[in-house]
Amino acid sequence: MISINVERLMKRMMDMSQIGAIDGGGVCRLALTDEDQQSRELFKVWMQEAGLEITIDEIGNMFGRTPHASSLDPIVIGSHLDTVGTGGKYDGSLGVLAALEVIDTIKDRGLTLERPIMLANFTNEEGVRFVPDMMGSFALKQPEVLQSLLDAKAMDDNSKTVGSELSRIGYKGAQKLEHFKAHAFIELHIEQGPILEHEKQQIGIVEKVQGISWTELIINGVANHAGTTPMSMRKDAGFVASSINYFVRKMALEMGDSQVATVGITEFEPNLINVVPQRVRMTVDLRNTDETKLVEAEERLLQYVNELIHSEGVSIESKRLVRFQPVDFDPQMILLGETVANELGYSNRRMYSGAGHDAQMMAALCPSTMIFIPSKDGISHNVNEYSTPEDIEAGANVLLNMVLQLAGHVN
Amino acid sequence: MISINVERLMKRMMDMSQIGAIDGGGVCRLALTDEDQQSRELFKVWMQEAGLEITIDEIGNMFGRTPHASSLDPIVIGSHLDTVGTGGKYDGSLGVLAALEVIDTIKDRGLTLERPIMLANFTNEEGVRFVPDMMGSFALKQPEVLQSLLDAKAMDDNSKTVGSELSRIGYKGAQKLEHFKAHAFIELHIEQGPILEHEKQQIGIVEKVQGISWTELIINGVANHAGTTPMSMRKDAGFVASSINYFVRKMALEMGDSQVATVGITEFEPNLINVVPQRVRMTVDLRNTDETKLVEAEERLLQYVNELIHSEGVSIESKRLVRFQPVDFDPQMILLGETVANELGYSNRRMYSGAGHDAQMMAALCPSTMIFIPSKDGISHNVNEYSTPEDIEAGANVLLNMVLQLAGHVN
Repeated sequence: MISINVERLMKRMMDMSQIGAIDGGGVCRLALTDEDQQSRELFKVWMQEAGLEITIDEIGNMFGRTPHASSLDPIVIGSHLDTVGTGGKYDGSLGVLAALEVIDTIKDRGLTLERPIMLANFTNEEGVRFVPDMMGSFALKQPEVLQSLLDAKAMDDNSKTVGSELSRIGYKGAQKLEHFKAHAFIELHIEQGPILEHEKQQIGIVEKVQGISWTELIINGVANHAGTTPMSMRKDAGFVASSINYFVRKMALEMGDSQVATVGITEFEPNLINVVPQRVRMTVDLRNTDETKLVEAEERLLQYVNELIHSEGVSIESKRLVRFQPVDFDPQMILLGETVANELGYSNRRMYSGAGHDAQMMAALCPSTMIFIPSKDGISHNVNEYSTPEDIEAGANVLLNMVLQLAGHVN
Repeated sequence: MISINVERLMKRMMDMSQIGAIDGGGVCRLALTDEDQQSRELFKVWMQEAGLEITIDEIGNMFGRTPHASSLDPIVIGSHLDTVGTGGKYDGSLGVLAALEVIDTIKDRGLTLERPIMLANFTNEEGVRFVPDMMGSFALKQPEVLQSLLDAKAMDDNSKTVGSELSRIGYKGAQKLEHFKAHAFIELHIEQGPILEHEKQQIGIVEKVQGISWTELIINGVANHAGTTPMSMRKDAGFVASSINYFVRKMALEMGDSQVATVGITEFEPNLINVVPQRVRMTVDLRNTDETKLVEAEERLLQYVNELIHSEGVSIESKRLVRFQPVDFDPQMILLGETVANELGYSNRRMYSGAGHDAQMMAALCPSTMIFIPSKDGISHNVNEYSTPEDIEAGANVLLNMVLQLAGHVN
């Protein structure tokens, strides 16, 4: 088992984090902005220094391939360089720069592989400036939607589109999406959750990505005087909203396993101390790695909402905002990750991802998985995002040794 | 039993509602504004036409007394002419103008009474432009606080005070608060709730005014990713807020009787669909006619809040915003109201008031009670506020005949 050069990787992580740096040690590199362009240019220079063959595809995904005599499909590794508005140094960048470090390590050691390796920096993973998120990898999975993605308007200025911004920053590539081929895909990423840190595990091998179901509920009750209206004669939209929040927590705990449920938005109207709320807008975020269970959670929520309509005399409008099915990663890839982590002596566990990642799109194209490392306090999408150099080194070493196995290390 | 002239009363109600008229048939006559001044001037003209002796006291309360040979304390009847920002035609005005109608009816009939009768229009009952509410009647109850009330700043312009605005509109009177004397007080008012309409009763005789307890709670949890944070590792301020809402409803139903509980304000932060809420500001409005029960409700809420602090790992700051003890009206006055309503053949019930009224301040000075008439759909503080002329006539007739009994009708 060989090891990456963690000093070089950390140096590049810190250099990259200067592009779009914001107060508190964070990063703002929204997709297809000037900052995104600068990060792409720096990455391009580093790929050129590593001797890679660079291509840009129609949606702006950047690839760097090791020169190779064979026509075998490459092992693809990477992630994304864009961030949210108040992002940290690690989300996305780690997967891209650790992939570059893997290439450099293989080069340093003069290792010969049976297959080429290809780095990837996917366009607009975060989906903050343009929807949908995971745009670049989604385009590879479904090339037929390219034009609609290129026409997506910027949230900050609807005279700009993905297409116009790609052209402006010089990353509207010529390579057809359909030409993308991969033997396997691995994405190293911070966990963005508390589990590894809490359980004192160094490595997470990601088995599944949770399916996501977002529902918006508009509850219409009747505004009434808080003093003069008997409890039995109220149609209290606020109480109904609270009952739903209370219910989804109870349901998630009862269902157990990977089921999570979150009420993130709740807005009371008129929101006055002595008036029974007339209207509430709220959202319910349900996630499960098992599609059957996710459907069950959706159905239980809907049933409870219908019960409340009858018992509380309110009307409730329900709107599905987002729905992604769960993704299963490749069992052989998962086993390989686990084996490599064990051989390297890193404590590890299988886990699922609660967030969306480019790897879930890649899973439709080739055997794929993800490697997670701990996030301090589970914090992400925040300037305080942090992972230790030791954990970064461990994650990159698992990536390196998985790549060596997959690419056929022959010397 | 004699009857008021409902056409004359309704004509005055409609004339008065033109002052500060707003779209939809409502009224905006905030205390001590130009509109309040105009309503006072019109009321003054009507009192002069009725031959009353007019006095204005130090807090701007207006009184109109029937000329009378005796030095006996008067029967005081009235309410307030100020409204909330989007008020209706009935809240307050009914009690003032029905009182005037009682005077006119007695005069029309040439009735001789043993005691004088005195109309009252209390200053700033609503408390929208200046706090506290029920200001004029509160000043009569506690004359020692006069200066602090005169110094109260306007919510819309803190260069203006109650004192400066009273002077500006010409209603900073000379009569000392301490000179106020009353043999009894009766206030006719719309219910502002749904009970009478729901139970098809024409008249409510008010036994008590609920005590009010307002608490603001600030819940501090931890913002976390809605997908990656297991249910067991959350400190979800939104769930805690919902639990409190759920709890207070359950508690109010368990306690029964007059107990009501309302969560009117709930504000999530950051209020994003996929982020576990970090902070919630919410309010709890508790009311009961029984002080012991109200204290019990407050204690149960506090105990539950403490349980949540421990079980959910959040911190909760609690702040008491408002606290009024319940007020019991005079049993003889209540019995009189009931007897008169029965003699007039009006269906009636005893009830409590969930809203604050000038009568609760008067109750500290003399035997007092209130007469309620139905509010359509229980709506008040709203342009759609409505009571039928028939109900208004019934309420004014109860007021008239109570006054005749109390004032000693001798011919």
